[in-house]
Amino acid sequence: MTELWLIGIGTGNPEHVTLEARRALRDAALVMVPRKGPDKSDLADLRHLILAACDSPAPVVEFDMPVRDDSLPYATRVARWHDEIAQIWAAALEKAQPQGPVALLVWGDPGLYDSTLRIAARLSPKPGLRVIPGITALQALTSAHAIPFNTVNGAVTITTGRRLRDHGLPPGADTVVVMLDGECSFRHLDAPDLRIWWGAYLGMKNQILASGPLSEATPRILEMRARARAEHGWIMDTYLLRRGD
Amino acid sequence: MTELWLIGIGTGNPEHVTLEARRALRDAALVMVPRKGPDKSDLADLRHLILAACDSPAPVVEFDMPVRDDSLPYATRVARWHDEIAQIWAAALEKAQPQGPVALLVWGDPGLYDSTLRIAARLSPKPGLRVIPGITALQALTSAHAIPFNTVNGAVTITTGRRLRDHGLPPGADTVVVMLDGECSFRHLDAPDLRIWWGAYLGMKNQILASGPLSEATPRILEMRARARAEHGWIMDTYLLRRGD
Ligand SMILES: C[S@@+](CC[C@H](N)C(=O)[O-])C[C@H]1O[C@@H](n2cnc3c(N)ncnc32)[C@H](O)[C@@H]1O
Ligand SMILES: C[S@@+](CC[C@H](N)C(=O)[O-])C[C@H]1O[C@@H](n2cnc3c(N)ncnc32)[C@H](O)[C@@H]1O
Repeated sequence: MTELWLIGIGTGNPEHVTLEARRALRDAALVMVPRKGPDKSDLADLRHLILAACDSPAPVVEFDMPVRDDSLPYATRVARWHDEIAQIWAAALEKAQPQGPVALLVWGDPGLYDSTLRIAARLSPKPGLRVIPGITALQALTSAHAIPFNTVNGAVTITTGRRLRDHGLPPGADTVVVMLDGECSFRHLDAPDLRIWWGAYLGMKNQILASGPLSEATPRILEMRARARAEHGWIMDTYLLRRGD
Repeated sequence: MTELWLIGIGTGNPEHVTLEARRALRDAALVMVPRKGPDKSDLADLRHLILAACDSPAPVVEFDMPVRDDSLPYATRVARWHDEIAQIWAAALEKAQPQGPVALLVWGDPGLYDSTLRIAARLSPKPGLRVIPGITALQALTSAHAIPFNTVNGAVTITTGRRLRDHGLPPGADTVVVMLDGECSFRHLDAPDLRIWWGAYLGMKNQILASGPLSEATPRILEMRARARAEHGWIMDTYLLRRGD
């Protein structure tokens, strides 16, 4: 393999795809996509939809994602999972023998809370890497609400649900944006002056939004989220917290 | 006017444009662009290049940007500047009488360190707003360096050169990304364990990159930056700082 192209595809709206990403999908010699699992199949479908819409002539190789061993401590579990995926990629590539660049479709932007770069770094020999940026869930959130990401000259902290639970609100942040939060960790915050802008399935047909003063909006969001999750069988959500306004 | 569309166009590479942005440019009834000033004309050219590449049939109205009054205190100066731009837009729209959505091309993403949303909020009657996300300079930076934006489960603080000078490194941040820094404020940091990934003219033909341990890379970047700035007459740069690695 000469090169590995990590292609950001945006976060649910097939029209998030950039002209650069579309061209890369057309120029790739092979496209690798994770096989459709039993759940989140809407997401696997989206990848195939994008490939079709981009008229990519490249053959598509599907691979199985390994299962994470939840009995291991967090760091070990993640590292082992990355090792296993790298082995699966290597085997798939060995079999396919691509004669040009290999494309991987990455949800959102390949840099933001995504493992693909770390998995690619485990391949040997190391492939050449090309990273193509994509619209993130954060941009899908602020554009859906038509709000600025930052206050004038203000800082923004991007963090995870786990960190918000473990460490509380980051000190001195004007704006906090939270991803990877399966537990609505905002409901544990005691911050009466915060407002929240929340969104799930951003960019998709079933996108839902809610916003308001944190204390007032929290029960509303918990209910919307539980209902939507039950209906679809899965959910992806993210939110922005800001003082005053 | 029925609606105002704020369209993110990415940060220098015309192929950053998303399919959604391209479609919106085609569907708009009018496009407003700031008139080419004496400097940064490469950037004004880029807007026209994108409009041409998107085959937008909409008439284009150019408007002059007011001059900021540097004698005023920061907040007043910015607020007054936004007021003036809103008045200029209102006058241009009054004259053009568009019969459909009006598009504004916004550098990068309309949410990130950009005034367009705040200026639009000053129009009366308030237009309907549609925000179309675009690739930011941060994504152009991390993709050019092929590095992740965050560490595993780590937080990222996005801040400005002014804040870095006034407040130093944000406390507890694993990764800090700095925009709007005309003075290479990283050179004042006393943090021997930091690494820097720096980039200027990201996404453009004249893109330049540098990275390394902060103390070693700083003189190299200062020199590259001064030389490039002298050559082009302007510069836009941004950088990411991270401990260890
Ligand atoms: C593993 S991270 C991947 C982020 C992705 N690389 C990006 O650039 O947005 C997954 C998290 O992103 C957020 N997310 C991704 N897509 C989303 C969507 N369509 N709607 C809401 N949140 C989303 C959720 O917080 C989710 O837990
Ligand atoms: C007023 S802000 C606008 C940011 C824009 N909305 C975005 O999403 O990237 C301008 C700052 O963005 C950064 N920037 C924008 N375009 C850039 C480029 N092509 N290369 C390097 N930095 C850039 C610089 O830090 C600059 O000071």
